[in-house]
Amino acid sequence: MEPICAISTPYGTGGIAVVRVSGEGSIAIVDTLFRGRVPLAGVKANTVHFGRIERDKEVLDEVLCTVFRAPHSFTGEETVEIACHGSLFIQQELLRWLIDAGCRAAEPGEFTRRAFLNGKIDLSQAEAVADLIAAQSKAEKDLALSQLRGAVSNALNELRERLLHFTSLVELELDFADHEELEFADRSELKRLAEEIESKLADLMASFRTGNAIRNGISVAIIGAPNVGKSTLLNALLGEQRAIVSDIQGTTRDTIEDTLVIDGILFRLIDTAGLRETGDKLENMGIERSRKAAEQAQIVVRVEVPATNEVQRDDLPCSGTVIEVVNKADLIEGLSDHLPATKDERIYISAKKGDIEPLRRELVRAARETMHTGAVTLSNARHYEAVCRAHEAITRVQQGMHDCLSGELLAMDLKDCIDALGEVTGQITNQEVLANIFSKFCIGK
Amino acid sequence: MEPICAISTPYGTGGIAVVRVSGEGSIAIVDTLFRGRVPLAGVKANTVHFGRIERDKEVLDEVLCTVFRAPHSFTGEETVEIACHGSLFIQQELLRWLIDAGCRAAEPGEFTRRAFLNGKIDLSQAEAVADLIAAQSKAEKDLALSQLRGAVSNALNELRERLLHFTSLVELELDFADHEELEFADRSELKRLAEEIESKLADLMASFRTGNAIRNGISVAIIGAPNVGKSTLLNALLGEQRAIVSDIQGTTRDTIEDTLVIDGILFRLIDTAGLRETGDKLENMGIERSRKAAEQAQIVVRVEVPATNEVQRDDLPCSGTVIEVVNKADLIEGLSDHLPATKDERIYISAKKGDIEPLRRELVRAARETMHTGAVTLSNARHYEAVCRAHEAITRVQQGMHDCLSGELLAMDLKDCIDALGEVTGQITNQEVLANIFSKFCIGK
Repeated sequence: MEPICAISTPYGTGGIAVVRVSGEGSIAIVDTLFRGRVPLAGVKANTVHFGRIERDKEVLDEVLCTVFRAPHSFTGEETVEIACHGSLFIQQELLRWLIDAGCRAAEPGEFTRRAFLNGKIDLSQAEAVADLIAAQSKAEKDLALSQLRGAVSNALNELRERLLHFTSLVELELDFADHEELEFADRSELKRLAEEIESKLADLMASFRTGNAIRNGISVAIIGAPNVGKSTLLNALLGEQRAIVSDIQGTTRDTIEDTLVIDGILFRLIDTAGLRETGDKLENMGIERSRKAAEQAQIVVRVEVPATNEVQRDDLPCSGTVIEVVNKADLIEGLSDHLPATKDERIYISAKKGDIEPLRRELVRAARETMHTGAVTLSNARHYEAVCRAHEAITRVQQGMHDCLSGELLAMDLKDCIDALGEVTGQITNQEVLANIFSKFCIGK
Repeated sequence: MEPICAISTPYGTGGIAVVRVSGEGSIAIVDTLFRGRVPLAGVKANTVHFGRIERDKEVLDEVLCTVFRAPHSFTGEETVEIACHGSLFIQQELLRWLIDAGCRAAEPGEFTRRAFLNGKIDLSQAEAVADLIAAQSKAEKDLALSQLRGAVSNALNELRERLLHFTSLVELELDFADHEELEFADRSELKRLAEEIESKLADLMASFRTGNAIRNGISVAIIGAPNVGKSTLLNALLGEQRAIVSDIQGTTRDTIEDTLVIDGILFRLIDTAGLRETGDKLENMGIERSRKAAEQAQIVVRVEVPATNEVQRDDLPCSGTVIEVVNKADLIEGLSDHLPATKDERIYISAKKGDIEPLRRELVRAARETMHTGAVTLSNARHYEAVCRAHEAITRVQQGMHDCLSGELLAMDLKDCIDALGEVTGQITNQEVLANIFSKFCIGK
């Protein structure tokens, strides 16, 4: 493909920056500007060369050029990576000179798109590249990296291959439609296969909840009566004065959100208004939000103080894991010296004193519990949507077999399932989907 | 030296980022984390290798490692450059893993400092690296690059070598002080040399004005009566609505500054309050500032309109080049269709209509005129200060010879001159100067 170029390192000034050139004739184009010991045309692949970038006797910079030859590069094409000094001026001039010399400025994600089009990676791997770059926590990085290394692709391809094989048998039957006695595709075997595939797809669908939690954070709502120290707890967990804290009941009115990483897991903490009966309209709106937060959160931290008579415990609808916490436990006689401590089912902490370690540990334990433990985790909404369609199709196949539908109809549903799976890895695709995927990339990747 | 590591690319998220590891044992340290086809210990210098960064079965990223072997690297030490995915999380983890594996986090400029300490570059070249990274215009880049490629060093080293030779002869005389008839150092030759050196140092000192202008921009004050369109002209030159424009006299009160690059030259434009007699105290303070700006600017653009009777032309003290401009020239009958145009000594423009090209050309011409055209340009205040001291010392040598001072006293002044020149290139230096220079670098260079 035509040669393209872009700055691949983050935008800004730094020690060095890397400009990537990829496509047919890249090496020749760079050679028109590069003055090293020898022209890059003659050097071995995967070697680095020092030289000047020079044009019409003007020297732009002293650089290091790394040469890759097709197909052994990220894009699968011949590629030169030019490491220049990290001045914005030099980076932009270098780009301009390359464009003058015959390159086109690369579009967002165009290098990765070429890697996909040249068969170096499939579509789900290409998407993983963008996820990897956006990764903010260990769990996110692990997810993206496993997808980049083919975990999602391999899982789906295996299912797809087996379905393809079976579908071809079913279609063979259709070719011999006159000979009704012929049945190439063993129906009981197809039934077992459909069951297995249905179950695996259901697993993958379930894993999306985890994948989503990893990418967006596991939601943790902090709930309780006024003045039990919910905002103080939020601040203690974050290690900063995020929420305003006072002795006045109803200090926190709106829900306050912030994120926190513990042990590589991203949590989305939600501090809420204290729950109580009140006539104040604004406060009641806040309390309504607290209820919503409790309802939707994956983990609810219910905060009490030693004196509380477990107010309103039962009328809070929680769908997630509930962690019961007794705050201000330093006020309990005999316990103050032994904090933090765990007694009965509840966790005793002092947010004000920063004695919250047992809660942090419990959050991690609860998060791990809510997470899918399967080998493959879906984290991409596009994949989830395609897997849902594949699941629907395979359910129709199962129903069809139960209803003794004709091979023709079964084949159609099988094909739907195969196509949906193929969309994830990009075996089935269209320009619009591709454009949408790669437009979310940064330029230079 | 001990192995150090740092992120060398700009801070932030991007396609790729580069982490640099340099020092004894760098390759072995990276090998404890790198899983490629073969360990890096065995690969050829200047080659690139694909692999995983892995520790305790956790894979951090898939990377490209480039291996450099001493002394053929930027620092002169063995070096590995790891190109990872440009996620901030991955960059920082990689750094952490390298530190866990035995690297120290590099201080600002520490790689360049090692290049200096290992004799790969001298001090003025090391400083040029920082200047090159900070370069914002072609002129700045050219200046830094010429310094990096040794222009300043070579010029000073040549003078220094010749002075050293001569001084050794003078000192030889001192060893044979009993034999007064001995004169190893030919006084007339020394006189010629001192003259030549004095003249070259004076040239270098003069070049600093240019170097300074290139780095900080050539100052251009826009001066004139109220309502001649000074702010409109500033905006037209900048191509944006930088200054507030109105029909009211005295709209611009304080001086407004902004920078502009034309033909690779950085200009620092200064819009000023309109000059007129007024009782308004605030406005008079503004007018006082206008006078100061005119006095200090390297270029003064004096703006009139066709009707102006050249008010206050003579009482403005300007030390720089003056460009006379007639604005609103589109109001002149018969000229409106032929704008922009030049008549007599003045430049006719219309800032409002954006017809300002002749002024842009004139600014570039005037700037080039004010610039030093010598081979070597000083741009660094530290170098300028050292060259000034060298110049003082050589002037003392000349005076001393004129006064027939003893060789002993001449030798002292010669030594002062040699030392001052050596400070620029770092042959004479101390830890404090070094610390000061490298603290201004970014980390990773």
